Amino acid sequence: MSAPSSLALPHIAKLHAYTPGLQPNEPGWVKLNTNECPYPPSPRVAEAIRNEVGAAGESLRLYPNPKSTPLRRAVAELHGLREENVCVGNGSDDILNLLVRCYCTQTVPLGFTMPSYSLYPVLVEIQDGRSSVIEFDRSMKLPLGHIAGSAASAFFLTSPNAPTGAGFRQAEIEEALKIFKGILVVDEAYAPFAQEDAVPLLARYPNLVVVRTLSKAYALAGIRIGYALAHPEIIDVLDRVRDSYNTSRLSQTAALAAIGDQAYYADVIEKVKTTRDRCVKLWSGQGWFTYPSQANFIFTEPRNARDGSGPAVAKGTYDCLCAHKVLVRYFPSHALTAPFLRISVGTDDEMLVLNQTLEAWRKIA
Amino acid sequence: MSAPSSLALPHIAKLHAYTPGLQPNEPGWVKLNTNECPYPPSPRVAEAIRNEVGAAGESLRLYPNPKSTPLRRAVAELHGLREENVCVGNGSDDILNLLVRCYCTQTVPLGFTMPSYSLYPVLVEIQDGRSSVIEFDRSMKLPLGHIAGSAASAFFLTSPNAPTGAGFRQAEIEEALKIFKGILVVDEAYAPFAQEDAVPLLARYPNLVVVRTLSKAYALAGIRIGYALAHPEIIDVLDRVRDSYNTSRLSQTAALAAIGDQAYYADVIEKVKTTRDRCVKLWSGQGWFTYPSQANFIFTEPRNARDGSGPAVAKGTYDCLCAHKVLVRYFPSHALTAPFLRISVGTDDEMLVLNQTLEAWRKIA
Repeated sequence: MSAPSSLALPHIAKLHAYTPGLQPNEPGWVKLNTNECPYPPSPRVAEAIRNEVGAAGESLRLYPNPKSTPLRRAVAELHGLREENVCVGNGSDDILNLLVRCYCTQTVPLGFTMPSYSLYPVLVEIQDGRSSVIEFDRSMKLPLGHIAGSAASAFFLTSPNAPTGAGFRQAEIEEALKIFKGILVVDEAYAPFAQEDAVPLLARYPNLVVVRTLSKAYALAGIRIGYALAHPEIIDVLDRVRDSYNTSRLSQTAALAAIGDQAYYADVIEKVKTTRDRCVKLWSGQGWFTYPSQANFIFTEPRNARDGSGPAVAKGTYDCLCAHKVLVRYFPSHALTAPFLRISVGTDDEMLVLNQTLEAWRKIA
Repeated sequence: MSAPSSLALPHIAKLHAYTPGLQPNEPGWVKLNTNECPYPPSPRVAEAIRNEVGAAGESLRLYPNPKSTPLRRAVAELHGLREENVCVGNGSDDILNLLVRCYCTQTVPLGFTMPSYSLYPVLVEIQDGRSSVIEFDRSMKLPLGHIAGSAASAFFLTSPNAPTGAGFRQAEIEEALKIFKGILVVDEAYAPFAQEDAVPLLARYPNLVVVRTLSKAYALAGIRIGYALAHPEIIDVLDRVRDSYNTSRLSQTAALAAIGDQAYYADVIEKVKTTRDRCVKLWSGQGWFTYPSQANFIFTEPRNARDGSGPAVAKGTYDCLCAHKVLVRYFPSHALTAPFLRISVGTDDEMLVLNQTLEAWRKIA
């Protein structure tokens, strides 16, 4: 018989899978490539998991709460909203995927900016849908006019932007909400590190969806929890498409414990921001164009000893760091991003190793 | 502005969400409604989770292995296959959803039998796809001719069947594989409780996909792990549509520990089968039509004191059990299933409470 994959739908057969950042299995790496938190989660998380597991893991034989109800309530309380305003996902990627399935087809495009989170076009391809792409220029100024003119039913805006780290003002988001006729999805994976966010706008704009994750600021990338905040009618639509048991018992438990310890995370976020701002200043000061970052990573344009920059220099820096077991991220496929490296903010010790390696590279490059 | 949900795609707006079985939050229920295992998971599971969490949950800040590679290897070894034959999902529902996304559209139908797992038509509706439904009659004989004649690119066969518990022979599955031109997905959620399964056929039929879950026989419904076994080309297609981080660190850890303790689960399965066969005999002996079960649940047609049966009698039995805090499942929406109750096999103590309650009901009904 013919090769079995040939029965897959044509758009699936030609799909480009999303490429996640490398997750090396062996120790010894300074891992600054997937924007994980360099500090551990709140100690309450480990304690809560131990309590849920108990001596024999007895509760694990039972299905989880299908709506993650206690977690929805905690998230709602955190943001001054109601349970009906919250949908919990298996990571925020689950939420983004649900949104694409609810709002995008071959005739109804999904809008997003380029560059932004590189998962969006992959989700549109899986859906066999159409994209409406708006290009940033190097100023990273929000192209409000283009968003207003987009025919998209939903528009994904990464705020703060990835991979540049550029932040947008709440007033700009509000302007977009006023002029865009569809649903504006503000992907706030990095908002805990920013000066402003869009959550306060939810009370006035029923066409706003805010997406959050526990993978970055909550130091819980390993447990896969994200959520959407929106008007109850949008939450209801997401719940219809969502898998009934999309989050595990232990993930719900871990997330609930983390969200209950805001004081711990305020400290973590403050430490990350301090390290970040010091590095932005350092690299800018040595003549590397570096976006002021509102996230937990820094987008910087390396310059070699001959004051050269560009894709080849960025690639050379990336390779040199890799050879010294320092892992960062390089996005060669877009003209705006190709001369840059995206570097997650690590501990001060990790950033010291990074900076020493960069210093050595500049002497030879 | 208009209600935001009105922007959702038409097929989403009119969706019927899947209705999971009730998961009561308060204690005191004899819970026989969602086919969970009545015994705890292997003690190695709790131990492995504690080791992964450590003192402070340090590893949870990092993303999980994106392909669940160690788990794929363990699953492959268990079934005498290669890593390339395995895709791991966030529960087997994740795998089923991926298959629908890869093989079903408005013009290419997905095939399945009625009755079977009630999630299938919901997944097709979410995909805005077309269904090709083949009806069982009360004999539950596999309608091979109808499957062969189906225009479906993929056909989902629940084996053993849910909710009847009827088993199919490996030779019948093989016959279906020979005559059906598409991909035959054998959903083996309950196969560990059956006499035969389709795994040995994978070596000879590249159009076979076997789907398994750890929610039933492995007593791990709470951790959300399932998997597909198939030809590497089909696994590759599923991986392109799969979310990169669809399973959490702790779920991967728990599943790996469970699969490593086959001796423990052989005992658990034997105990469930013994209790099951005793109850089937008891209920059949008292004149209730009861399918011989190859699963961890029993499908039985209650008869009241006046020897009446049918949907109203089944509903009455369900309500009476519910009033006594014994939770079972009732499927009124199909003529074949409406006179029956589906009762998960619990511990012997739980089945005693159930049988005493049924005994009391028969005296008054």
